[in-house]
Amino acid sequence: MSKQSKQTAISPCRADDYPEWYQQVIKASDLAERSSVRGCMVIKPWGYGLWENIMRVMDSLFKTTGVKNAYFPLFIPLSFLEKEAEHVEGFAKECAVVSHHRLEKGPEGNLVPAGPLTEPLIVRPTSETIIGDSFAKWITSYRDLPLLINQWANVVRWEMRTRIFLRTSEFLWQEGHTAHATREEAEERTRLMLDIYAQTAEEYLAMPVIKGHKTPSERFPGAVDTLSVEAMMQDYKALQSGTSHFLGQNFAKASQITYQTAAESEEYVWTTSWGSSTRLIGGVIMTHGDDNGIILPPKIAPSQVVLLPIIRKPKERDAVMHYTESLAQELKSINYHGHAIQVEIDNRDIGGARGWDWIKKGIPLRVEIGPRDIDAESVYIGRRDKDPKDRQSISRNQFVRELTTVLDDIQISLFERALALRKAHTQHIDDKRQFIDFFTPRNQEKPEIHGGFAYSHWCGAETCEAQIKNDLKVTIRCIPIEADQEKGTCIYCNQPSTQRVVYAKAY
Amino acid sequence: MSKQSKQTAISPCRADDYPEWYQQVIKASDLAERSSVRGCMVIKPWGYGLWENIMRVMDSLFKTTGVKNAYFPLFIPLSFLEKEAEHVEGFAKECAVVSHHRLEKGPEGNLVPAGPLTEPLIVRPTSETIIGDSFAKWITSYRDLPLLINQWANVVRWEMRTRIFLRTSEFLWQEGHTAHATREEAEERTRLMLDIYAQTAEEYLAMPVIKGHKTPSERFPGAVDTLSVEAMMQDYKALQSGTSHFLGQNFAKASQITYQTAAESEEYVWTTSWGSSTRLIGGVIMTHGDDNGIILPPKIAPSQVVLLPIIRKPKERDAVMHYTESLAQELKSINYHGHAIQVEIDNRDIGGARGWDWIKKGIPLRVEIGPRDIDAESVYIGRRDKDPKDRQSISRNQFVRELTTVLDDIQISLFERALALRKAHTQHIDDKRQFIDFFTPRNQEKPEIHGGFAYSHWCGAETCEAQIKNDLKVTIRCIPIEADQEKGTCIYCNQPSTQRVVYAKAY
Repeated sequence: MSKQSKQTAISPCRADDYPEWYQQVIKASDLAERSSVRGCMVIKPWGYGLWENIMRVMDSLFKTTGVKNAYFPLFIPLSFLEKEAEHVEGFAKECAVVSHHRLEKGPEGNLVPAGPLTEPLIVRPTSETIIGDSFAKWITSYRDLPLLINQWANVVRWEMRTRIFLRTSEFLWQEGHTAHATREEAEERTRLMLDIYAQTAEEYLAMPVIKGHKTPSERFPGAVDTLSVEAMMQDYKALQSGTSHFLGQNFAKASQITYQTAAESEEYVWTTSWGSSTRLIGGVIMTHGDDNGIILPPKIAPSQVVLLPIIRKPKERDAVMHYTESLAQELKSINYHGHAIQVEIDNRDIGGARGWDWIKKGIPLRVEIGPRDIDAESVYIGRRDKDPKDRQSISRNQFVRELTTVLDDIQISLFERALALRKAHTQHIDDKRQFIDFFTPRNQEKPEIHGGFAYSHWCGAETCEAQIKNDLKVTIRCIPIEADQEKGTCIYCNQPSTQRVVYAKAY
Repeated sequence: MSKQSKQTAISPCRADDYPEWYQQVIKASDLAERSSVRGCMVIKPWGYGLWENIMRVMDSLFKTTGVKNAYFPLFIPLSFLEKEAEHVEGFAKECAVVSHHRLEKGPEGNLVPAGPLTEPLIVRPTSETIIGDSFAKWITSYRDLPLLINQWANVVRWEMRTRIFLRTSEFLWQEGHTAHATREEAEERTRLMLDIYAQTAEEYLAMPVIKGHKTPSERFPGAVDTLSVEAMMQDYKALQSGTSHFLGQNFAKASQITYQTAAESEEYVWTTSWGSSTRLIGGVIMTHGDDNGIILPPKIAPSQVVLLPIIRKPKERDAVMHYTESLAQELKSINYHGHAIQVEIDNRDIGGARGWDWIKKGIPLRVEIGPRDIDAESVYIGRRDKDPKDRQSISRNQFVRELTTVLDDIQISLFERALALRKAHTQHIDDKRQFIDFFTPRNQEKPEIHGGFAYSHWCGAETCEAQIKNDLKVTIRCIPIEADQEKGTCIYCNQPSTQRVVYAKAY
């Protein structure tokens, strides 16, 4: 991030106040807003369109691996949640509890809750226990395995400090739940779904990620192993962008999910669960956004192109609109990665604010069309990944012919820019003093500016991990999968270690 | 419905006990089941696949009319619901109330609700008031109108007596909400969305419907006018299959949704809302199902074709599976109404039960493939809309070539069969005695068997409507839109009337 040197559409700019920039850029891009309900967001059409495309991508990748969608109850009886001790412990502090099932006039004439429930219901924070109840009914024999289920749903975790997309009391997500006959098969599935999250992030969201194992203290409550994909945001903090859990037989035992083997013995199944959420939108904003707004990767943008007809005199209107609409029709017939190009036409009479609105909303391509362009059979295009002033006139035919190539080029340039940022702010560090310096804010007024990701050794002790978190607000993001074994000594306590881990501050 | 004369897959058959047949057919078709949470259902993969296709159809039709999707909070503050008096009155008796936001150890060591909320939150039964809160922020000028929003979501209405798909405490639906500058435009939108519900029902679900206005007593709480589409089930009862409400300025006043006109005066907007739900699946079951299971219209079936390889000797396996898989690949490349044909391969070694499983699940076409079929380059097909024994051998080439034609033929035959049933059980009745007879059960043990739909006159008085409901359990389903004005006298009280209405028993 370079210091602000010119007028930008978003104030403050990233370098001046990154957290506030994040709030302002969401507002300016019209993605979402806070609702009147504590901690809950409203996802506006532009933001929801983005989520629809992310859902479409993931849903299709899941189904390719044999997963089918289903739907399970919103409410979980308290006794179900209590079946797995670590699980309920992990979620008890943030549960929305339903206690009554109607309203009636109270003594002061106002409506008050009535019809108390005999057992409180918890609004699902995640669905392992309620889905486990169904799996126990559905699975009887080895022939029923593997069982591969996903659900698209809303979940509620009562967060005290919320931030749109990153941490809200209600959010939208998918949660996959699978059951297998063997440990090996369940572990393979855990890894396969992590790969799909990595593929979604890198190929569609243009967001490079590191795949790895969480340390025991960062595991999902009740899991044997948690895998995650971690991305670097532009303030060099990590964003966990999808997790895949190997649950061993913990939830099978809690919900009594057993099957009869071919040899007719009764065994517990092995389960997995894996989830990703509207948090990914926060990742897209913080990975690609600049001081003029958000920048959407073309493959997941709700629309790839906006046409901006320029009409200075009333008599020009018909010709300009006709040219615009015929171009829109032509573009919509183009196939872009299996789907039609989506086109917006913005003919609002609001002057230059119109182009800036679309820059702030991050649409990949802006196309201006005026009488001179029509005469020349050309269009005047601006790419969102370039400077707003850097526009060029090209022939209409060339534009149509090269459209998907240009979009792919934007998609790739966004990924490469993000990868370059991560590389520039990742270091292998073996010296404790240097490690502490790396994570120490350069400026006390901007505690968010620091070094980035450190690949350093860890002894494996939770005490050491806790000490680092306490001293520096730095956590082990993951023990990377794709890394060589390497002997070394713990960055904090000097005990022996066999592998580097990824240390970072995180959202 | 003819009396059961032979062995059928579902017991009891429709004629013997229609309500119980409904429960059994859902179980046998593997669509859904009751959950361990009171009144909530689990939608299983086959049922959810059906819902995914229904969503895809409606979502696309909505978007064609300019509607965009968004997402609003699950929770509604009690004070919001109270803003519209009739509205809260209508939903107070069936609200799930969230009262606490965490759990903690109680005096007896068990977990109890803690962190009481200062204002109770209601789990949305519908979202007029919470969406109205956003609309009030989003709309300032006539330039912001019309605002056309839809949301796909779960809602909760605490029903005391539940039946899967027809009436459950939680269900999935879409709710559209629009705001307009004029009354006329809002009324037009109300009607347009009703037409889309009718189109979805008739063209996709193969379910003929009658479009009409609800009487004042059957209106949505807070609406000025409620339109609905009504279908006849095979027990001659009506199923309301989608409603579209003209809300006037009631909710605009409740939520203070105003706009500045071009002449710079401040006016309330005019709003509409419209919804349809997983109840439609209940409609599909009861419209098309027979004594062997459900029958799915090809356009919305999760899969159109199941291939059943027949392997009697191990040495036949490779050849049969190769032929089956190559046929599956060929079928999947066929475009059926804009989407690829979906194919299942069922190679379970369970004998004849396999074919019956797919009959019960209602898949449109079953295709058996054995060594003799391979030698003859043929397939042996069974249509779900025909008798299970009525199967035929045709050449593989012909099957592939004619597949979409056959599917369209099944789609049409289902619609025509349903339309014929409705015609056969609909009467114009002008005599009170005859009207009472029409709705009187033929057999006291089977109160569900009666005449069907009666087109008869109504004076317009709520007292008369209430009397009919009380005496016969018959309600006015709608005042049909597509009917001529005709002078007559009320079927119950003989007062003058200008139009026939549709009387029926209803779900």
